[in-house]
Amino acid sequence: MKESTIKQGKRAVLLMSGGLDSYMAGAMAVRAGFECFGLTVAYGQRHEQELAAAERVAASLGVVEHKVLELDLRSFGGSALTDDEIEVPKGRGDKGQGVKIQGVAEEIPVTYVPARNTIMLALALGWAEVLGAFDIFIGINAVDYSGYPDCRGEFIKAFEEMANLATAAAVQGKGRFVIHSPLLELSKAEIIRKGVEMGLDYSLTHSCYDPAADGKACGRCDSCRLRREGFAKAGLTDPIEYVGG
Amino acid sequence: MKESTIKQGKRAVLLMSGGLDSYMAGAMAVRAGFECFGLTVAYGQRHEQELAAAERVAASLGVVEHKVLELDLRSFGGSALTDDEIEVPKGRGDKGQGVKIQGVAEEIPVTYVPARNTIMLALALGWAEVLGAFDIFIGINAVDYSGYPDCRGEFIKAFEEMANLATAAAVQGKGRFVIHSPLLELSKAEIIRKGVEMGLDYSLTHSCYDPAADGKACGRCDSCRLRREGFAKAGLTDPIEYVGG
Repeated sequence: MKESTIKQGKRAVLLMSGGLDSYMAGAMAVRAGFECFGLTVAYGQRHEQELAAAERVAASLGVVEHKVLELDLRSFGGSALTDDEIEVPKGRGDKGQGVKIQGVAEEIPVTYVPARNTIMLALALGWAEVLGAFDIFIGINAVDYSGYPDCRGEFIKAFEEMANLATAAAVQGKGRFVIHSPLLELSKAEIIRKGVEMGLDYSLTHSCYDPAADGKACGRCDSCRLRREGFAKAGLTDPIEYVGG
Repeated sequence: MKESTIKQGKRAVLLMSGGLDSYMAGAMAVRAGFECFGLTVAYGQRHEQELAAAERVAASLGVVEHKVLELDLRSFGGSALTDDEIEVPKGRGDKGQGVKIQGVAEEIPVTYVPARNTIMLALALGWAEVLGAFDIFIGINAVDYSGYPDCRGEFIKAFEEMANLATAAAVQGKGRFVIHSPLLELSKAEIIRKGVEMGLDYSLTHSCYDPAADGKACGRCDSCRLRREGFAKAGLTDPIEYVGG
């Protein structure tokens, strides 16, 4: 594509979860002509489907390298995604029971993983500095974002400032780290519509927090609900399979 | 001790490397009456002595729990501490050869691990939030600090601001995260003198970047040099053994 000549040799690290959003954020990095390196953190999510989807998406985007880093956040627990004793809530308005995080009230769902995006971005920053990259792409969005504090623009801005004080490359004036969150202001329906226009194949992706044993998405967790509503509002058909059809 | 009644039940996470500095920072947290949780990140350092020292220090401080988290930063490389192809420099003024980090000039030694303290603090933040802790202790110091950008007060301040935007507990107003770096303005000699006054047993600690097969410190790497000079300036004897006596 035309843009690829613009940033010849300019590298970027893409955080890849295997979901819709990081797929599109990554595709935007590729379109902008970055030489892309995908990073997936296997942090002890409930299931392996996310990692398999991240592999498919990385291959589809043609990243130079896709690294899967193991990090056992189950060791900390505190989230429905990293602690089997906390159930993934199912159904609209169900924020879940049994949150073990002291000081966290009911407005933020139990699928929130404490400091997850801070940890992910810190790891991406470390790899970026080694690669000589100053651009990191993350597919967060603040509209249909489930209420996670680390999916907001002010968090990203603060992380970026910190990153530019933390690293040798930035302090020595070789460049300035930029955290790109191109989906921040888009609704899920807008993301899906735009992604389909860009030719993305959403059958590669996985969004469900709690899939069935056969890998089918539950259709009822927050992540499935946001996805299904997004496809419905976009007037498009979701290519993945759900439990019960 | 007297202070322990003041902060009854107030928890803190201590980042523990097994070296002098994190030992003293941890001891200050204990003295201040925090209920302490030790976190050591096994990030692929060259040797296991650091982890063994961290275990000894944690036991000596009487932490409630000491967690060792595995995270393979060798997967990124880019530092003499995480890449066998980069040699640990030995001798004053030797900053090392063969830095693979693009954009990093000669003033920062090859023992710098890209974004290490950002990654460590991000992990400590995640655990702290699960524990209901708002206080994190890190033993960095900006005086004899080898030139690492993530050992400076402005980095810590920026991390703290970011942390208070990143987390549910802070955003919901349950508390404000504080990154304590009580050694920031102390020289190594001051740290050692003060530590001995506090009754710390430095024979528990390990500082060397590149110990011999029998575990003895090399005495020549930056970390050994700073330690030995610190003991010499403090007029005290270092209780650990060095190669060649």
